[in-house]
Amino acid sequence: MSTLYVVKIGGNIIDDEKKLSSFLKDFAAVKGHKILIHGGGKLATKLAEQMNIPQQMIDGRRITDAETLKVVTMVYAGYINKNIVAQLQANNCNAIGLSGADGNVILAHKRNHPTIDYGFAGDVDAINTTLLKSILDQQVSVVMAPITHDQKGQLLNTNADTIAQEVANALSSLYDVQLIYSFEKSGVLLDANDDSTVISSINPSYYQQLKSEQKIFAGMIPKLDNAFAALNKGVKKVIIGKAEQLTDLITGKAGTSIVHE
Amino acid sequence: MSTLYVVKIGGNIIDDEKKLSSFLKDFAAVKGHKILIHGGGKLATKLAEQMNIPQQMIDGRRITDAETLKVVTMVYAGYINKNIVAQLQANNCNAIGLSGADGNVILAHKRNHPTIDYGFAGDVDAINTTLLKSILDQQVSVVMAPITHDQKGQLLNTNADTIAQEVANALSSLYDVQLIYSFEKSGVLLDANDDSTVISSINPSYYQQLKSEQKIFAGMIPKLDNAFAALNKGVKKVIIGKAEQLTDLITGKAGTSIVHE
Repeated sequence: MSTLYVVKIGGNIIDDEKKLSSFLKDFAAVKGHKILIHGGGKLATKLAEQMNIPQQMIDGRRITDAETLKVVTMVYAGYINKNIVAQLQANNCNAIGLSGADGNVILAHKRNHPTIDYGFAGDVDAINTTLLKSILDQQVSVVMAPITHDQKGQLLNTNADTIAQEVANALSSLYDVQLIYSFEKSGVLLDANDDSTVISSINPSYYQQLKSEQKIFAGMIPKLDNAFAALNKGVKKVIIGKAEQLTDLITGKAGTSIVHE
Repeated sequence: MSTLYVVKIGGNIIDDEKKLSSFLKDFAAVKGHKILIHGGGKLATKLAEQMNIPQQMIDGRRITDAETLKVVTMVYAGYINKNIVAQLQANNCNAIGLSGADGNVILAHKRNHPTIDYGFAGDVDAINTTLLKSILDQQVSVVMAPITHDQKGQLLNTNADTIAQEVANALSSLYDVQLIYSFEKSGVLLDANDDSTVISSINPSYYQQLKSEQKIFAGMIPKLDNAFAALNKGVKKVIIGKAEQLTDLITGKAGTSIVHE
């Protein structure tokens, strides 16, 4: 099977024009099949302010009312997605920008939480791998916006990390998938305040050891649990590190690789 | 060759939620390959007002400065495009929404006018038929937003009528293309004020006769000239009529068909 890179970039890159442009140049240069999944950044919040739409957050999550859904659809699936695609084209990387509604690529349902009404937030049900494969096999990269749909006409705001993981899991039957999560730090650190203490590779037994020695920063544990879950679903490797180091993340010269035993 | 319907809908349908929903139900029911091209409607103007971006019009054309480009990218390629796709999915019509940057489907250049600076307005150079064909042949319909790109990273605001014509022309080597332009009237009328005087079919010699007898409303002449130009480039039939009558436009029971001799 050929290799597929599924790369998630966070809002800190989206919000910084220079960093984004440099990242896209690196992404364009990566050889082989690739999917880029982007979050939202601060643009949606800024547009909501300009439009006088109050933003409600519960536990750090945005509550997506009807007006906010309109804003995130415009910003994520419109402005950010199309500008990323145009920049990739300028770097000789043919790319196609999709929401989950396009080609029914990501089917989701409105979140049903017992106590909190998250509004039009979507939880993923299924990935349509056929269309994705046909696009990738034409040497066209895919750029995914974190908007899905329920096949009943409703668009839904969906967590980009979750989309990355679901897409990586689903495509691991067709490709050797490497899932790359970019964030602010250089990788998983032994000392949370020292970027030079990156652990280059973690397998399940080393993870157990690090956890029992309480050497893993608590905030990293859900990320790592998700990474190991992805490996169990067929993903070959999960890499966590800085978007600015994409090339080195792929060659293993930077970041933390989460691998099988 | 199989038939491909290229359907352009105007802003009057986009702006009317009920009319749009009813049109999309009809569009979903059309058998065979199909592409929907949508304009913008009043939503972009409204958003620009909310964002305090002054809109400059010259001869009925919007001047696309950088801030306005951001607005139309969000509204056309984001909000309108994704909502149309989600509604088609709800009607069991698998569809994919694209801008011209996606898959490099429509390459354009910034308009270079001797006296007027239209800003980021694009004139079409080329259509990438390979990717469009591969999507259509998977029984997936295409929904095109009137945003193109120049392959140098610049998105461009582009006239939707022009996109419809260019897409129809380019695909006429691969499909029997029927190009359907929807507008406010029921078709080409003998009496501009009487919707019951629709001319059902016009061929080149009848067009010459109607023009010499001054029976064609002056405003229709550019539309008809474009329709005959499309026929000369390989399009099989051009139909002009009301979006509300899509089904009857296709079967020839409504609207005006512009056909070869």
